[in-house]
Amino acid sequence: MKPPGASASGEDDLIARYFRPLATDLGAFGLVDDAAILKSTGDDLVVTTDAIVEGVHFLPNDPPDTIARKALRVNLSDVAAKGASPAGFVLTLALREAKDEWLAPFAKALGEDAMSFQCPLLGGDTVSTAGPVMISVTAFGRVPAGKMVKRSGTKPGDKIAVTGTIGDAALGLRLLKGNLKSAGLDDAAYGSLVQRYRVPQPRNAIAMVLRNHASAAMDISDGLAGDLIKLCAASGISATVVASSIPLSDAARGLLDAGQVDFEDIVAGGDDYEILCAIPENRWESFARDAARAGVAVTCIGSVVAGGEVPVFVTRDGKPIVLKRLSYSHF
Amino acid sequence: MKPPGASASGEDDLIARYFRPLATDLGAFGLVDDAAILKSTGDDLVVTTDAIVEGVHFLPNDPPDTIARKALRVNLSDVAAKGASPAGFVLTLALREAKDEWLAPFAKALGEDAMSFQCPLLGGDTVSTAGPVMISVTAFGRVPAGKMVKRSGTKPGDKIAVTGTIGDAALGLRLLKGNLKSAGLDDAAYGSLVQRYRVPQPRNAIAMVLRNHASAAMDISDGLAGDLIKLCAASGISATVVASSIPLSDAARGLLDAGQVDFEDIVAGGDDYEILCAIPENRWESFARDAARAGVAVTCIGSVVAGGEVPVFVTRDGKPIVLKRLSYSHF
Repeated sequence: MKPPGASASGEDDLIARYFRPLATDLGAFGLVDDAAILKSTGDDLVVTTDAIVEGVHFLPNDPPDTIARKALRVNLSDVAAKGASPAGFVLTLALREAKDEWLAPFAKALGEDAMSFQCPLLGGDTVSTAGPVMISVTAFGRVPAGKMVKRSGTKPGDKIAVTGTIGDAALGLRLLKGNLKSAGLDDAAYGSLVQRYRVPQPRNAIAMVLRNHASAAMDISDGLAGDLIKLCAASGISATVVASSIPLSDAARGLLDAGQVDFEDIVAGGDDYEILCAIPENRWESFARDAARAGVAVTCIGSVVAGGEVPVFVTRDGKPIVLKRLSYSHF
Repeated sequence: MKPPGASASGEDDLIARYFRPLATDLGAFGLVDDAAILKSTGDDLVVTTDAIVEGVHFLPNDPPDTIARKALRVNLSDVAAKGASPAGFVLTLALREAKDEWLAPFAKALGEDAMSFQCPLLGGDTVSTAGPVMISVTAFGRVPAGKMVKRSGTKPGDKIAVTGTIGDAALGLRLLKGNLKSAGLDDAAYGSLVQRYRVPQPRNAIAMVLRNHASAAMDISDGLAGDLIKLCAASGISATVVASSIPLSDAARGLLDAGQVDFEDIVAGGDDYEILCAIPENRWESFARDAARAGVAVTCIGSVVAGGEVPVFVTRDGKPIVLKRLSYSHF
């Protein structure tokens, strides 16, 4: 029994203490209602949902602040890829136990990201589980009506581009799991790969650039190779990617050159949360210029070609590279 | 490796086979994009999220079709309580394994409910977990701008009403868990209590009636006693509920009269998914009439009173009943 006037359950206390401060939007009603409101603005509302699971998308010993950021950012990455501006999110938290030392840094980091990405917490649900911790986020974005950047819409001749560098997160995970020797990596390189796995950098800074220039876009979550197949399939086209043009971090380049990792580790590992997009050739220059202004590195890695074959990775002199695996799959 | 042209992962196959047929809304893009679109209609968009977890909200042996319906309906219940019309939902499914014999009836039932409640699947995420199955749904509803029925807004003198009957689901759970002898219950009564636990009946039929008449509303998910505390706290008022006026099914009444269950089993058990609302006295008649026209039974169980004390349950002659517990809490 609680004293009179106290809330009825530990769950409510938990929400009030840790999550109410994050519910800064008027439509969240301070999390005391059963639902939130997203006001109509005339824009289309983009809706996306992605969950992260302990042992799959993050490791049991990952710091709670990085887990919080990853849970939100994998969704912000989808919002960015669709050319939308973040509008808010709801959170489902399945926990084995409610420990202050885990919840306090989790909620603090989530609040910081919600603030910096202008994506306020609108509501949520907290449930107990006997299994792995799971955090499911549904995020909302706004785009002018009809202007969402789709997966489909690219045509032969379009250039294929990615943001940032590819493969780092997958290598970071292998380092954390002990499946990759860190010999040859200095502390900074090791730290940067691990950080790329734990805290993705969603590319919301170029959402409007994508809306203005991209014929199709998606974020890379399951590996460049597998996600490129999806991008191509959505438009019924194929693509040729020059393997050596794929942007790599110095750390990843070093490991690849030393033979410590293979090409598949880079392109089929997943967790990149970079943008994969197609840009009509006549828009490439303005796309690259606008992306640079937004502070996001973009690299052309190949081009869209006609045909229904799976996209081909080729060497600098055009020889196809046969991939032993394509992407991460849950089942 | 998959043959060329096949999709890149088992997850995609699963989504295509089972869930694409449910994505009937144009804004779902056949689930081939990374996000869905909810078009602007000028209405406010109500957003709510609730997860159900194996072993907590459903039992490992519950039929997959009832699990699917419960996952969606607990959210539809929130949409109804807010006076909104269903507009769609997104689904996160955390599964240990992807078995056809589980997924096929799950998706079929989900599709039937999506159709009958006019709440199409807009998107989702499917992840693997080593732990209990968990289904997280975020549901959307539309209400005319500013017209969402809130938890707050009730005043002393308002009548307190509930839909349907209270306590059945909690008794159904106890029967399924073997914590309650089924002696004295005929098969139909046993079946009806179990069904109430497995497949809630959300009261979307009276969403508009609530919008027209209720000063405050919420759905009852954690037990009438605990949820009434929340309703009162949101408005800074208290309430008096006459215990004998709480509507009970014949099955629950029989068990209570026989002393097989106590009053707390009825009002603190949870999983009712009925509506708890406050109705200004001068609107009661039209509320009751409109609810009857919508085919939903409503019962006045008490009234709102001034003060910040927790609501009191009283006997027919006004004596307070001290409750040994108030509601289900996850933590």
